[in-house]
Amino acid sequence: MDELFELLRFASISTDSGHKVDVQACADWLAARMAAAGLQSEVCPTGGHPVVIGRNEQEADRPTVLVYGHYDVQPVDPLELWESDPFDPVIRDGRIWARGSTDNKGQFFAHLCGIAETIEEDGKLPVNLIMLLEGEEEIGSPSLRPFLEAHRGELACDVIVVSDTGMVAPGVPTLGYGLRGITCCEFAIRGPARDLHSGVYGGAVANPGTAVARLVASLHDDNGRVAIDGFYDDVVALEDWEREMWRSVPGMSEEDILGVTGAPSLFGESGYTSAERLWARPTAEVNGIWGGYQGEGSKTVLPAESFAKLSFRLVPGQDPSDIMDKVQAHLEKHCPEGVTVEVERGHHGQAYRSDPHSAHGRAAQEALRKTFRADPVLIREGGSIPIIQDFKEVLGVDTLLLGLALPDCQIHSPNENFTVENFEGGIRLNRVLFEELAGI
Amino acid sequence: MDELFELLRFASISTDSGHKVDVQACADWLAARMAAAGLQSEVCPTGGHPVVIGRNEQEADRPTVLVYGHYDVQPVDPLELWESDPFDPVIRDGRIWARGSTDNKGQFFAHLCGIAETIEEDGKLPVNLIMLLEGEEEIGSPSLRPFLEAHRGELACDVIVVSDTGMVAPGVPTLGYGLRGITCCEFAIRGPARDLHSGVYGGAVANPGTAVARLVASLHDDNGRVAIDGFYDDVVALEDWEREMWRSVPGMSEEDILGVTGAPSLFGESGYTSAERLWARPTAEVNGIWGGYQGEGSKTVLPAESFAKLSFRLVPGQDPSDIMDKVQAHLEKHCPEGVTVEVERGHHGQAYRSDPHSAHGRAAQEALRKTFRADPVLIREGGSIPIIQDFKEVLGVDTLLLGLALPDCQIHSPNENFTVENFEGGIRLNRVLFEELAGI
Repeated sequence: MDELFELLRFASISTDSGHKVDVQACADWLAARMAAAGLQSEVCPTGGHPVVIGRNEQEADRPTVLVYGHYDVQPVDPLELWESDPFDPVIRDGRIWARGSTDNKGQFFAHLCGIAETIEEDGKLPVNLIMLLEGEEEIGSPSLRPFLEAHRGELACDVIVVSDTGMVAPGVPTLGYGLRGITCCEFAIRGPARDLHSGVYGGAVANPGTAVARLVASLHDDNGRVAIDGFYDDVVALEDWEREMWRSVPGMSEEDILGVTGAPSLFGESGYTSAERLWARPTAEVNGIWGGYQGEGSKTVLPAESFAKLSFRLVPGQDPSDIMDKVQAHLEKHCPEGVTVEVERGHHGQAYRSDPHSAHGRAAQEALRKTFRADPVLIREGGSIPIIQDFKEVLGVDTLLLGLALPDCQIHSPNENFTVENFEGGIRLNRVLFEELAGI
Repeated sequence: MDELFELLRFASISTDSGHKVDVQACADWLAARMAAAGLQSEVCPTGGHPVVIGRNEQEADRPTVLVYGHYDVQPVDPLELWESDPFDPVIRDGRIWARGSTDNKGQFFAHLCGIAETIEEDGKLPVNLIMLLEGEEEIGSPSLRPFLEAHRGELACDVIVVSDTGMVAPGVPTLGYGLRGITCCEFAIRGPARDLHSGVYGGAVANPGTAVARLVASLHDDNGRVAIDGFYDDVVALEDWEREMWRSVPGMSEEDILGVTGAPSLFGESGYTSAERLWARPTAEVNGIWGGYQGEGSKTVLPAESFAKLSFRLVPGQDPSDIMDKVQAHLEKHCPEGVTVEVERGHHGQAYRSDPHSAHGRAAQEALRKTFRADPVLIREGGSIPIIQDFKEVLGVDTLLLGLALPDCQIHSPNENFTVENFEGGIRLNRVLFEELAGI
């Protein structure tokens, strides 16, 4: 626990160039920790933040397991909503409170603790291990795919293990076999050369604040369906067994989701349950919108420019570049008169889907059953880990998503936390999982 | 000019409570300046910022003229767009650059300079003078109407003179006989209890950023017409002579407005010219919109709340409270599912209209003609000076709007400026105007 706290104290915010030093320091610390556990470790420079690699002695005739995690974290604002310093972890009510406690430091560090324990107790691991920790997941992993391609041979493996997803409810072991993809952009609306007096010019000059609102509003119809031409063209439909299993999955009722999120009511695409909307349907979201005066009192300006940050969650079948082409065409086509729109594309990643009934999938189900003493549920995840699709394409292997996050651990939000119980469960899971995978 | 610079150095931003001391210091300075010019002056406390009053010796059998101005100014952000410090005035290219140079310190101070000159040269003024300067115009003059009501007798006058509006073009004397009114509000959209991960919850929980956009978008139809039920019900139609005169008024062509504003093209309500849209048609404008992440890079959140500041410019016939009732009903009716809306009402003021062909109107036209050696044009203004309607209702008199601002003097924007020529013209105008009014 002391070591996890040390790890959580690094403010390794990858999106903010002001924290570059913290990201590097965190990578160095992890390499040292791997070495202390008995692994050969290395901090590998990339075009962005470094990748940290750890390996044991590789032996023939046993499977190679790549454990992936990311040591970078999301920004912490609004800081005033945190009940304790996001980078000074504390334990309260059986939970570890800190930015990155769940996403993803706590989860991958449980694996590293399991590995260290096994080596200490058994002298070695039952599988060949490659542990790969990146520092750019929260900004879309721009350097990792080139890294995989450059080290394809050294990273060859049979299966990949990732704990960066969720358990559907406390005590319910969960195997994820799918993730949504993502594609992001920011757009700028520009009108007059400067902010104008809304009395002197209002009515004859288009308002960029109105224009940004009209464009964001144009992304959906009144039924919550995305209104971009061709957006749903390539979506692969849900299978019947998925709809059936998800109907009774714990933690996904309307009451559950209202309880966890505090939303006044739920709203989404007509014709789908919440689980289906979150795990198997694509979305268009505005992550930020701004323009004009935000301060105290009133300032009757017509703002010169306004902005929005958009992200689109994608499902199997949808190609991120194709979707972003459609988004850009939509924004340009619907841009109101009297202003211009400029789209800046951001990061993207394909959606991912594997077969939870494969040999590796069955081994993972068994490890979950033994660790948590309950039948695992099979789900997809609403979040995006674009690198999982890259692993598939570059290394040719599937990923087991063994989530340890709980619905109320508030990842990406103020007061992120991780239960001590799941941190300890993750340590046990690592040991059982490696045994099961060694036995295939 | 040195004295004007002293006046412009006060950061008398009325909307920002952090500048309360500067507003008070500015009022004290003005009272001292009036006394130096030979007026009896007084700083009168109110519930908010003070009113400064100056008078000459009042004589029977001559008209009483009330000269109104406001010594408070708009905020200065975005500060980085100013080419020089907004509160350290400089002269460059024949213009005085500073916040308040045009709106309104430069304009009312020209009158005070004219008054000081007349008293110095002639020993006295040809009219009874009441000069009234307030410190709350930019926040809607909340204390002035009570002040007028409390001092109705002492403030009795025959006509009011205000230079806080525009000349349509350099060298074209302009008499304003109408102003738009205004009503303002801010609304908050609230959804989940905190920012959510847009992958984990996006699709099943409504996004307050989308909701604020949809509500702002709902304010207009595609033709630029306000889409709030009953918004146009009480609008008094334009008269034929107004449409005729405005067709050829200088400075109001599409090319002129594009040149001054830098907008890529013009857009407004179908069926009206720009002059008509600005001077005689009501509007709905978003002055600020914000929610979610605005920083560097991306942060894939679904924001917990989003906000917009709205203002509505009103025309004769429309009642501000009635319009705000309709706005609030519209926002509540159109609030998307899954979020709540809360409306906070701001300041408001009635539109104003007088007869430019009355005796006072003809005197003002003559003063403008003599001062600028050209026929004046008769216009309304797009901006709002709510107190003008209050003068009408409380004191029972009309106001002559003798604008000295030019279209490119950038009021309410960075790099506000006032031409030295119009500052000097304002001094001359004051002297001729008082002579004309004395002669009625």
